[in-house]
Amino acid sequence: MGKTLGELAAFLGGELRGPADLVVRGLAPVDQATPEDLTFIAHPRFARLGETTRAGAVIVSPQWAALDKPLIVVEHPYLAYARVAALFARARPGWTGISDQAHLGAEVKLGRDVAIAPLVFLGEGVCLGDRVTLMPGCYIGPEAIIGDDTYLAPNVTIHERCRVGARVVIHSGAVIGTDGFGFIPTPEGQLKIPQLGTVVIEDEAEIGANVTIDRGALGETRVGRGVKIDNLVQVAHNVELGEHTVIAAQAGIAGSTKIGKWVGLGGQVGLVGHIKVGDRTQIGAQAGVTNSVPPDQVLLGTPAWPLKETHRIWASWHTLPELYRRVRKMEQQLADLTATLERKSET
Amino acid sequence: MGKTLGELAAFLGGELRGPADLVVRGLAPVDQATPEDLTFIAHPRFARLGETTRAGAVIVSPQWAALDKPLIVVEHPYLAYARVAALFARARPGWTGISDQAHLGAEVKLGRDVAIAPLVFLGEGVCLGDRVTLMPGCYIGPEAIIGDDTYLAPNVTIHERCRVGARVVIHSGAVIGTDGFGFIPTPEGQLKIPQLGTVVIEDEAEIGANVTIDRGALGETRVGRGVKIDNLVQVAHNVELGEHTVIAAQAGIAGSTKIGKWVGLGGQVGLVGHIKVGDRTQIGAQAGVTNSVPPDQVLLGTPAWPLKETHRIWASWHTLPELYRRVRKMEQQLADLTATLERKSET
Amino acid sequence: MGKTLGELAAFLGGELRGPADLVVRGLAPVDQATPEDLTFIAHPRFARLGETTRAGAVIVSPQWAALDKPLIVVEHPYLAYARVAALFARARPGWTGISDQAHLGAEVKLGRDVAIAPLVFLGEGVCLGDRVTLMPGCYIGPEAIIGDDTYLAPNVTIHERCRVGARVVIHSGAVIGTDGFGFIPTPEGQLKIPQLGTVVIEDEAEIGANVTIDRGALGETRVGRGVKIDNLVQVAHNVELGEHTVIAAQAGIAGSTKIGKWVGLGGQVGLVGHIKVGDRTQIGAQAGVTNSVPPDQVLLGTPAWPLKETHRIWASWHTLPELYRRVRKMEQQLADLTATLERKSET
Repeated sequence: MGKTLGELAAFLGGELRGPADLVVRGLAPVDQATPEDLTFIAHPRFARLGETTRAGAVIVSPQWAALDKPLIVVEHPYLAYARVAALFARARPGWTGISDQAHLGAEVKLGRDVAIAPLVFLGEGVCLGDRVTLMPGCYIGPEAIIGDDTYLAPNVTIHERCRVGARVVIHSGAVIGTDGFGFIPTPEGQLKIPQLGTVVIEDEAEIGANVTIDRGALGETRVGRGVKIDNLVQVAHNVELGEHTVIAAQAGIAGSTKIGKWVGLGGQVGLVGHIKVGDRTQIGAQAGVTNSVPPDQVLLGTPAWPLKETHRIWASWHTLPELYRRVRKMEQQLADLTATLERKSET
Repeated sequence: MGKTLGELAAFLGGELRGPADLVVRGLAPVDQATPEDLTFIAHPRFARLGETTRAGAVIVSPQWAALDKPLIVVEHPYLAYARVAALFARARPGWTGISDQAHLGAEVKLGRDVAIAPLVFLGEGVCLGDRVTLMPGCYIGPEAIIGDDTYLAPNVTIHERCRVGARVVIHSGAVIGTDGFGFIPTPEGQLKIPQLGTVVIEDEAEIGANVTIDRGALGETRVGRGVKIDNLVQVAHNVELGEHTVIAAQAGIAGSTKIGKWVGLGGQVGLVGHIKVGDRTQIGAQAGVTNSVPPDQVLLGTPAWPLKETHRIWASWHTLPELYRRVRKMEQQLADLTATLERKSET
Repeated sequence: MGKTLGELAAFLGGELRGPADLVVRGLAPVDQATPEDLTFIAHPRFARLGETTRAGAVIVSPQWAALDKPLIVVEHPYLAYARVAALFARARPGWTGISDQAHLGAEVKLGRDVAIAPLVFLGEGVCLGDRVTLMPGCYIGPEAIIGDDTYLAPNVTIHERCRVGARVVIHSGAVIGTDGFGFIPTPEGQLKIPQLGTVVIEDEAEIGANVTIDRGALGETRVGRGVKIDNLVQVAHNVELGEHTVIAAQAGIAGSTKIGKWVGLGGQVGLVGHIKVGDRTQIGAQAGVTNSVPPDQVLLGTPAWPLKETHRIWASWHTLPELYRRVRKMEQQLADLTATLERKSET
């Protein structure tokens, strides 16, 4: 598993400053690396640790190229780290062939080299592309379609007729295509609105553990190409997520909301239903968004306002008790002044 | 699967304005419907789309009965839509009989026509009513009881001795009857309070995907008849939810809190433990409720106050920086006035 | 299953006031107990219920020792209740031996008396300590290690190479060791940062249902000894949780944040990444923490401030509309005063 510094510098298109034949066997944080590890400095915060790191070699930007260590100098060390990590990563656990402890429904269509682990259930008419991997405990509902090279971690549920693209990763415990939440109160109780739609997950999306994505009431809930969703996120029925949007853990998006491309939602963010969020907008952690947002905004707070304004508001709360004191003091002063003036008038 | 407009108008008790023998084959949103689809207009927002819809026929209220299309005119188009959707809905995926890839513990009691899919585990003494469906990956703990016609989606966990009523639906990944969260700090660490109780889910409830409902510490956690719970909701030990209450995604209810009937909790709402929420009260998304609430309230915000007040408060934040400027300005004016007066007194 | 009051008093080291041979068969809340039950009064709130309880006997503190009932008097009734509950608790559901409906990968190492239920999957090289219990639907990834006496409830997922200590309990639906959430935006889309690390869960920890704990990007995510995590909590990559810390439901902790010992996080709390929370600090429900916090603090609110300050701020919001009115009124008074003075000057 070792790589020479020469190989790595070539792979990264970086400048080698050190012995090309030095071998590193792993990748480690700057403060934990051993002489057998490669490390990297991607943030000024960690720069001074570079001087004391025990790492065998360091990936740095030109800014820190003076470091007295074997170096690979690149423009973007964090990006280089991601690329080297992919070299050192082991393959995800898989399976070979189709386990006879899996259940395959009638008329399933299987691509080439699919991997179906034990304890997997495929409903009738499921269609799997080439090299799909289904880990133990996965359930794929009738007529669901899964694209080439897609990987489902253990205990994933994909409901009937949902469509998952190619090169998608879905993590454990995620539930795709469960009923949307629609009820109408009637004198007899909550009347269920049957959820007739589906979920479509486009190519290269990645869905976190224990995420829930509801099927459309009518039509589709859609997760765009390359979207990345962290754990425990709720995506309600008929939501649309534009390409390359990123959603942090525990965020929730209510029904029919449309989110643009390259949007970022922070952890625990909540969006009401039936709004639109423009491309590239960033929404900070725990924000509550109740209105549509244009492109290229940065919002924070509940209710969500532009970042600067929310910071101003938060700062102002901090001194609110003092403001009350100042107002009270002025009221007294005013009363005194008024009384003084009245006395003067009377005299 | 086609239905004639005549059939549908009769089913809905609506007024037919168009050819009774026109056949529609599906239900679709007004802006996506094809000539083979029925659609509906339930909100003024969508009314103008009625004029351009390609739908074969439209369900409308008397208000939009002038539309130049085959129509079914009803008092409540949204309700009519829900009822028609049920006509067009396919049956949930199921299973026939008892799979020999399921595990049945000793002394299980099975009603008539139960459906037990492969990869299901029933503990000892489990009791299933008639026509219960257990989809793949479900675990039913010892001595749990499940009522007639209840449907458990794939990968649901029901712990020992919990009782689930009739006609209940539990979605994938839900965990019913896990230990409540109770610990006492001691010098040696957190001492666990054993959770001896159970969960009772009454008839016609519906529980969302990846919901967690804890068993009582002593006694029961109770989900009332017809309660509807969205995905990723946390219901702590000894909580009680009154009939027909509706809880949106990612809400959390702490221990021993009692919620009345027909209550609505928005997404990401948090309620502390040991409080009461009165019947029909509505609590807006992301609110944090720290005190008991009488019936028929509408609350919002953290901490939660009546909707109007929270809106007033939120509006006031928006202008807080300006308020600070105004107060500073007045302080200056007051100082000037006082100085002026003092000068006058001196003269 | 009955116990005599004498036995129980001796077990608790309490003072018996009543017949030593009185038998109780269960433990129940003060307002629901029957004459066959033992109950307890641990909070003044429930004291008056002691007079009307039907319980056969009551655990009380010296303060309520005058109650006219068979009593066990102890210093800490709540602690005594927890200890008695352990006596009355039934064993968790288990399994005997290794089911032939489980899948065991090559080269698994099994301790003595392990219990592996049907529908369990063990990857290659998994190592289980003595008396480990794996309930149905559990997945243990390759080379994961699980310590003695650890119990995994149904449908738990432990990913490859993670290490779980001894006497740990992990509840249903929890996912341990899923990929951390790390992507770098590039013109072609979000580039995944491979997550090469693992998760370490130390002895006596307890992890709630549907919790997600991500593996380190490099290095470990670590859950300290005796940590207790409630349901639906998110623990991101490289987080460290100190010993005996307690985290309530739906809290979320972003990447690389380090939390001390004996810390308490309330429900739905959110912590940003790369901060430190000192030992024994308590953070109230729904708080949003964006900066490091010293030891022994009590924080609340978003953004989080010391409890007292947040309470002052919340109280001040409540009267903000009134403050606006007061400021407007003063502005008017000031204007009037100024005008009056000017008129005087002119005269």
